[in-house]
Amino acid sequence: MFGSVLVANRGEIARRVIRTVRAMGLRAVAVHSEADAELPFVAEADAAFALGPAAPAQSYLDIARVLEACRATGAEAIHPGYGFLAENAAFARAVTEAGLVWIGPSPDAIERMGDKINARNLMERAGVPVAAGTREPVAGQEQALAAAAEIGYPVMVKAAAGGGGIGMGVAHDEDGLRKAFQAATRAAERFGGSPAVLLERYVARARHVEVQILGLADGTVVALGERDCSVQRRHQKIVEESPSPGVSAALRARMLDAAVRAGEAVGYRGAGTVECLVDVEQGDFVFLEMNTRLQVEHPVTELVTGVDLVEQQLRVAAGEPVTFAAGATEPRGHAIELRVYAEDPKRFLPGPGKIDVWEEPAGPGVRVDSGYVVGNTVTAFYDPLMAKLCVHGADRAQALRRARAVVASFRVEGPKNNLPFCAELLDHPEFVTGDYDTGLVGRMRA
Amino acid sequence: MFGSVLVANRGEIARRVIRTVRAMGLRAVAVHSEADAELPFVAEADAAFALGPAAPAQSYLDIARVLEACRATGAEAIHPGYGFLAENAAFARAVTEAGLVWIGPSPDAIERMGDKINARNLMERAGVPVAAGTREPVAGQEQALAAAAEIGYPVMVKAAAGGGGIGMGVAHDEDGLRKAFQAATRAAERFGGSPAVLLERYVARARHVEVQILGLADGTVVALGERDCSVQRRHQKIVEESPSPGVSAALRARMLDAAVRAGEAVGYRGAGTVECLVDVEQGDFVFLEMNTRLQVEHPVTELVTGVDLVEQQLRVAAGEPVTFAAGATEPRGHAIELRVYAEDPKRFLPGPGKIDVWEEPAGPGVRVDSGYVVGNTVTAFYDPLMAKLCVHGADRAQALRRARAVVASFRVEGPKNNLPFCAELLDHPEFVTGDYDTGLVGRMRA
Repeated sequence: MFGSVLVANRGEIARRVIRTVRAMGLRAVAVHSEADAELPFVAEADAAFALGPAAPAQSYLDIARVLEACRATGAEAIHPGYGFLAENAAFARAVTEAGLVWIGPSPDAIERMGDKINARNLMERAGVPVAAGTREPVAGQEQALAAAAEIGYPVMVKAAAGGGGIGMGVAHDEDGLRKAFQAATRAAERFGGSPAVLLERYVARARHVEVQILGLADGTVVALGERDCSVQRRHQKIVEESPSPGVSAALRARMLDAAVRAGEAVGYRGAGTVECLVDVEQGDFVFLEMNTRLQVEHPVTELVTGVDLVEQQLRVAAGEPVTFAAGATEPRGHAIELRVYAEDPKRFLPGPGKIDVWEEPAGPGVRVDSGYVVGNTVTAFYDPLMAKLCVHGADRAQALRRARAVVASFRVEGPKNNLPFCAELLDHPEFVTGDYDTGLVGRMRA
Repeated sequence: MFGSVLVANRGEIARRVIRTVRAMGLRAVAVHSEADAELPFVAEADAAFALGPAAPAQSYLDIARVLEACRATGAEAIHPGYGFLAENAAFARAVTEAGLVWIGPSPDAIERMGDKINARNLMERAGVPVAAGTREPVAGQEQALAAAAEIGYPVMVKAAAGGGGIGMGVAHDEDGLRKAFQAATRAAERFGGSPAVLLERYVARARHVEVQILGLADGTVVALGERDCSVQRRHQKIVEESPSPGVSAALRARMLDAAVRAGEAVGYRGAGTVECLVDVEQGDFVFLEMNTRLQVEHPVTELVTGVDLVEQQLRVAAGEPVTFAAGATEPRGHAIELRVYAEDPKRFLPGPGKIDVWEEPAGPGVRVDSGYVVGNTVTAFYDPLMAKLCVHGADRAQALRRARAVVASFRVEGPKNNLPFCAELLDHPEFVTGDYDTGLVGRMRA
């Protein structure tokens, strides 16, 4: 095992990684921008290196400067956190070429999964379900009928060019398809300039569910359960939970199996996430994309499996075996994470500011991963995530109760925050029953 | 379920109980002395009632005043925490007679287990192993030999009167017993005024291991694993862990079985603890005593089982079934609790004072149950326990690493504290290997 780790990130994730690095008896090095000098992740590291001004391009995204920080501090390995340089293959390559240990998958795996078309084809060849649909515009009604039969009803018909919902229609059978095809063709011609239409599987109600995988040093890939991340607005996750209340045991088994095959297909090493779209009504799923790094919401997996994912990332990167037993990671209980953003809770607009009051909740089943202490300032330079309130309960009902309690007892004053939204969500009938989908936040704010 | 719970206690345990009460959607009522008015458990409750002056007899031990607090605040149930009135059968009876729900075992069970001689006889009849020894002084050498054969070697011979180690000797066989008996008889006569001697089983190396039980509303009793509490000084526990590294699977099974029988023998309801003495060299155990209340060190059990013991106490008291499945409480991973006392770390003398700095550790696998925030004053009126640093790891090695990390990162200034002792213990070879016994702290401070 290397003796020191530089964390090329900031805020809550830098702090969280530093905690595990230090608990493993290794030396933790922080890097920071001028704007972040007073944040706790800097003080809690064994050494700190100032990268440059607040703007990410001049600090956290400056590859040469981060490598200089390694040389200056004697760091032997780099953990990239999430965001910033975490999925930058060129950075991963530069790290390795500098003779340092890259805590993440190979640059090749990052690249292959970063190209979405390529990733989709790769997954299809590996036997992972992908979204059914025509890759090229269909030539006439007969071809549309044949394509629909292959995709399976209901199908969505839409203009190939233009976008913005032009001619979009849903067909539940052949008759419906004929009507939808004609309507879409006409609309596509009129508003898009071309009659060409595409068909794809229609998902009326979707959940966003992802599988945590870990590629081990010996080349095997294991899956550590799933996370439901359907509570989103504009593709930004707000609340995640594990297990997913919308996934049956049979579906879960198929998803985990597919995620392992996805990882094996790219020779994946380290922690990664296979994101899937679950069709609530059909009870099946398709591959969306793979994130080749630690996920923001990884604590819910840690809470239900008891595995420290950062520790395992470090072990894999060092070529060591993992320290958990096969079968020991079956989820126990239920975990929920609530992201507390510095933002307006109604319109989700950023609301940075100095933190005047900051009292974190604690107690049984409570874990808080936060990036700030009282007196710090949340700036507009970076992601507005201030803290992740995570709870673990023996079952979902207890986890929900604990989630409400931590939201009620977390005191933040200064920046705006979305705690009122979290409280509202935790009492929403769809969330309470678990029968929600990716449209939930939109319906709450309609 | 009752709608409100008064917590007849203070500090960390009042705060911890209030957290669960509120997470269950119930109203939490705090009672407090004048000295404790500024502590967080008072602020975090839904209502608070001032009992009286700092002296416990005029506040937390004043039964009439606590009952008055219930009437004044409309509380329907009382949780006593530990210490103070928790094992006071008269209080439990007064609570019930006032038409309130007592969250604890029946007054009868408290009394029967509170009388140590009676408890020992009751346990013996229930088939629970008790310490072997002569109840009456032995009449001569032949009777001593017969008694020793029954007790089993090694036996300890000591004066029946006097105490203080007078004439104490250990015999490993019959020859040794003859010599020890003669020496003890002479010493007893010379220094104690009577030649009468007692024999008891000699335990060269002992561990203090206790089993958590829960008597359910339907009358059954379940065991939720054990805790090793061998790190003590003058019978005060400092560090506890679960599972015990000194108990084999076979011994554990026998201990849990005995603890369930102990609970059944008194018709036990609610959370209780069966304390045992484990003979390290012989690999067996005897019953010591039963604590008829929540234990300080209950969090280690909660961490490895995922069960909220306070929630289950409330459910049992309300006549509800528990909310965990049989078999779902098998310990997962390893948990360690470190008690941070306001005391001198070398000589263990109390060191109260105002808290100038207070920064609690956090992160994966970390739970802190504390009674104070910055600005509070630790007074000399009550137990000097300031916080319990609890860690959970996938295995004992990870739990140990996390324990060292939280001890290193917990910042307290103002009162003296025993964090240096905790750090020293966590690096002590006996604790690191797990092969320690109740003599460890004495050897560290020899």
